[in-house]
Amino acid sequence: MFLARVIGSVVSTKKDDTMKGRKLLVLRPVFPDEANPTKLKPGGSTVVAVDALGAGAGDLVLFCQGSSARMTTGMKTLPIDAAIVGLVDTVEVLGKNAA
Amino acid sequence: MFLARVIGSVVSTKKDDTMKGRKLLVLRPVFPDEANPTKLKPGGSTVVAVDALGAGAGDLVLFCQGSSARMTTGMKTLPIDAAIVGLVDTVEVLGKNAA
Amino acid sequence: MFLARVIGSVVSTKKDDTMKGRKLLVLRPVFPDEANPTKLKPGGSTVVAVDALGAGAGDLVLFCQGSSARMTTGMKTLPIDAAIVGLVDTVEVLGKNAA
Amino acid sequence: MFLARVIGSVVSTKKDDTMKGRKLLVLRPVFPDEANPTKLKPGGSTVVAVDALGAGAGDLVLFCQGSSARMTTGMKTLPIDAAIVGLVDTVEVLGKNAA
Amino acid sequence: MFLARVIGSVVSTKKDDTMKGRKLLVLRPVFPDEANPTKLKPGGSTVVAVDALGAGAGDLVLFCQGSSARMTTGMKTLPIDAAIVGLVDTVEVLGKNAA
Repeated sequence: MFLARVIGSVVSTKKDDTMKGRKLLVLRPVFPDEANPTKLKPGGSTVVAVDALGAGAGDLVLFCQGSSARMTTGMKTLPIDAAIVGLVDTVEVLGKNAA
Repeated sequence: MFLARVIGSVVSTKKDDTMKGRKLLVLRPVFPDEANPTKLKPGGSTVVAVDALGAGAGDLVLFCQGSSARMTTGMKTLPIDAAIVGLVDTVEVLGKNAA
Repeated sequence: MFLARVIGSVVSTKKDDTMKGRKLLVLRPVFPDEANPTKLKPGGSTVVAVDALGAGAGDLVLFCQGSSARMTTGMKTLPIDAAIVGLVDTVEVLGKNAA
Repeated sequence: MFLARVIGSVVSTKKDDTMKGRKLLVLRPVFPDEANPTKLKPGGSTVVAVDALGAGAGDLVLFCQGSSARMTTGMKTLPIDAAIVGLVDTVEVLGKNAA
Repeated sequence: MFLARVIGSVVSTKKDDTMKGRKLLVLRPVFPDEANPTKLKPGGSTVVAVDALGAGAGDLVLFCQGSSARMTTGMKTLPIDAAIVGLVDTVEVLGKNAA
């Protein structure tokens, strides 16, 4: 899994039937880094993930990719390759809080 | 999932039997970017995806990769690793419209 | 999926039993590019894929990666992560033929 | 699989129900390298993995990605794409110990 | 699949129960390249793969990644994402032998 910040959302009206009613968020992956343990380093590419946990803009989340995204509760038959699996309280790197 | 623009198409006559009649589109992935929230940043590599939603040249779409591409309606047994799962109406980044 | 040119082949005598008799080709991925719509841009890394369609040196093919490679006809139980799914007739980018 | 050092941990209270009670560690992938066989070369991006083997800060571990992460004992239905599968005793590169 | 040279091995005593007795090798991926058809070009990152074919240091092998690694004979329930599927006799690129 990777950590990410929610930076936006996507609206799609004409979509695969299985996707109706799903909330799509834009995520900026961020990476803990022991060279700078109190900061989360932004990654190069954003990702669109399905959210069922109520994440909102600015939230730090944990997301999962690939077929495992479908193991998220209620998503077994969805054509999705990324899903939010947790809202993150704290990240600790080398004993320090990263944010 | 990732966003992409449809930039072309592929025709293959001799193909795996399961692929007969499938429409193959060439996609240029594009990435929302909070440093420039009104623009979608083009990615480095194009992808060929199956389309069952009627996407056409220039359309902004959402696509899915890996085994989840097969969860798209009617594609469970296809040897595909990319499928369009939605036509995109709007992308919002930090409260602004990205296009 | 991605497009590729066949540039070679691999022979392996001692291999997993399930792989006996399978033809292994070396592929150079090539990418349609709207900045230069008549050319296919070569990618950085070659891939070894199973072929059951009779592809040969120089052919332009469409290949699939990951678990979906096993959905190719007759390959369900093979330990393969890349398979050729079609021989390509034409690629169109922004209304032009790419080759 | 890849090798990695444990450099931190993640706490998430609001998460997918299936993830309750799971321990999430931050891993820095490290790569054996025959050009410098006694050193493990740090990779560019950290990963968050589930741990059920009792790994702790500084440990060298082996982790697995993708759907196979769910094959780790007791994790079949979890929405995870990375799991620790072993604590590493020794890595040998070209007959030398790498650390 | 990709080609690779075996450059080392990994020993892990405390590991997932399903992994007991499995041989773990360190692989350096190498890539056929039509710009230099007699050479195999080393890749940037090494990989740890399970071996059941008796590969040893210096051998040129073919390996498979992702869920398909589990299709290797006897590995269906293992938490592995890379497995050796063949020992390579010859690689031919543009009619020349690559080594």
